[in-house]
Formats: sequence, structure tokens, C-alpha cells
Amino acid sequence: MDAAEEHFRRVGYARTAVADIAAALGMSPANVYRFFASKAAINDAICRRLFDEAHAMADAIIAAPEPAPQRLAQLIRALHAYNKSRLTDERRLHDMVEAAMAESWEAIEEHCGTVRAGLARLVADGMGEGAFDPALDAAEAGDTVFHLCLGLFHPTLIAQCANSEHGAEPERIIAYVLRALRP
Amino acid sequence: MDAAEEHFRRVGYARTAVADIAAALGMSPANVYRFFASKAAINDAICRRLFDEAHAMADAIIAAPEPAPQRLAQLIRALHAYNKSRLTDERRLHDMVEAAMAESWEAIEEHCGTVRAGLARLVADGMGEGAFDPALDAAEAGDTVFHLCLGLFHPTLIAQCANSEHGAEPERIIAYVLRALRP
Repeated sequence: MDAAEEHFRRVGYARTAVADIAAALGMSPANVYRFFASKAAINDAICRRLFDEAHAMADAIIAAPEPAPQRLAQLIRALHAYNKSRLTDERRLHDMVEAAMAESWEAIEEHCGTVRAGLARLVADGMGEGAFDPALDAAEAGDTVFHLCLGLFHPTLIAQCANSEHGAEPERIIAYVLRALRP
Repeated sequence: MDAAEEHFRRVGYARTAVADIAAALGMSPANVYRFFASKAAINDAICRRLFDEAHAMADAIIAAPEPAPQRLAQLIRALHAYNKSRLTDERRLHDMVEAAMAESWEAIEEHCGTVRAGLARLVADGMGEGAFDPALDAAEAGDTVFHLCLGLFHPTLIAQCANSEHGAEPERIIAYVLRALRP
């Protein structure tokens, strides 16, 4: 996975073949195929590792000793910054994630599920603290906050907004999300 | 433009050349180039015509004799339905819009500006009616509502959400947007 990631980042995902990765490791392509069924499977594993890094960061924010609205704002801010710097600004890495969106939808879907669960957890905490509307359904609210923040989270949109005069302006979106959750 | 659109829809955008469009019209490519500098320029004009159709629909909703929150909900709902049916579900048309996002960013940007202005107008109306927070800045709120709704408006995201168990669920997103605007 390290050798493949290095190759994908240096040469580009589309231009790398499994044979190149095998050659870099001084082994036969057949030996690589013992562990990964395809190039897409290698990229899938690399993307999952990247997402695990984001989840560890999210877990630390969720567990922090702060009021839920502040943790929710911080989680949205941190996920935006992470996706922007890791998945979007690094063009090679962006290509890998775009390929994963086309080829490994399951890994993306699982990642989004983990993020949604984290958001739902913070909504539930905020309801318990009296900061958010107690009549909300926390799981549903977590899903909805995720959708409201897609412009901040989705690598394709982050890249497009960077070309626009109207950037995503994270703090304003976060403020509106918190307004929506008010009692 | 009609001949080009027909060709793009039937054969696909990538596989159509200006010469094909000229041949369908029984004229020389040079004659087409008298009016359009490139295939991208033809697609740009077709996309602008498509966007005009959406703007006429938006104008009718904005002018309707109904309270602003209902008109705002209806505008978001209608733009989502329009983009879903016209720009996303028709695969050939989707390719043309994806090409425009890569080649004619200005047309896309202008379209988004018109939508944002419509949203801002309805926020201002709602503030006047006492339904929305009078302390909001209507233009800023219009921009932010646009960003919150990107998952409902953006063709790439509409297409991806269709592959997901967690669809965009327009009514829930609309409900949260209205919650965010409350006084």
C-alpha cells in the first residue's frame, strides 16, 4: 500500500499499473494479485486508511470536554480543513479519491456513515445539554447536517468552489447549521 | 443550437465534432465557426438556454401570491426536481453539463448567481413578513441557503446520492433551512 500510494502520488493514479507497483517492490505482479484483486482494490485500501485518519481526528473532537455546539462546529470545521488539504489541494490524491468515488463507492459510503454517526452523536449531546431542540431526532438530524455541509465536505465541490468567487465560507455555513438546531 | 443539442443527446457530447453538426445542417464547418468559436461555445449557448428555462420557472415561483417561507420551500423543491430530471437523469444531457462545468465555468457561475439572487429575494420577503429573523443579511443568507442546498442542486451530487442509501431527502433539508432562518 505504501509503495502503491507513493507511485499514485508521483506518477498519477490513471498512469500507474499493478505491474509498476510490483516492479517497485521487486516482486511479480502475480504476487501483488495474491493480496489485491485489482488496482481499484489497492486504491480502496489506501482510501480507507486515509479515512481512518479522519475518523481518529473526529473521535478526538467528539470526546473533547466542551459544550456540544462548539464540538459540532469544530468537527465540521476540521472535516472541511482535512478534506480540503488532503483530498482536494493535493491533485494526485484528489485523482485517487475521484477514482474511489467511481470504483469503490462502498468505502466512500462507509466513511460518510461514520461522519454522519459522529454528527448525530453531537446533536444528541446538544439535545441533552438543552442547547439543541429536544424534539429533534438525533440520527435524522445527523444525516441532515451532513447533507447541509456537503459543499464543505465533498472534494469535487471544494475544488469547484475554489474556482468560484463564492467560496464555501465554512463559518457562515456552521452558524446556519447551529441556528437550524436551536430549540 | 437545436441541431447540436439533438446530436449531443443522440451521439454524446464527447463523440460529436463541429463537422458532424455542420453535416447535419448541410453546411460547411467554416459556416458554423462564423457563429461559434468552438464546440464548447455551442455547448455554452445550449446550457445558457437550459438555465434560462430554470430561471423562468424560478421567477414564477418568486412572484406567486404566497408567504415567503412557502415560496422559498417551493423554489428549492422545484430547482432540485428540475436539475434532477433535466440535468441528471438524462445521461447525455448530464455529460453536456459536466462538460460545461469543465469548459464554461462562467455560464455555470452566472446561473448560480441568478439562483442565489432569487433565494436572497425570498429571504428579504420573509424578513419583511416577520417569518424570518430581521437581523439577517438577506444577500448573505441567500448565498448561505444556496450552499446548504448544494446536495439538492448540484448534478454530480444528485447523481451520486441516487447511488446511496442516503438520498438527499429534499423535504428534510428544506425544513432545516427554514429552521435556520427563524427569528
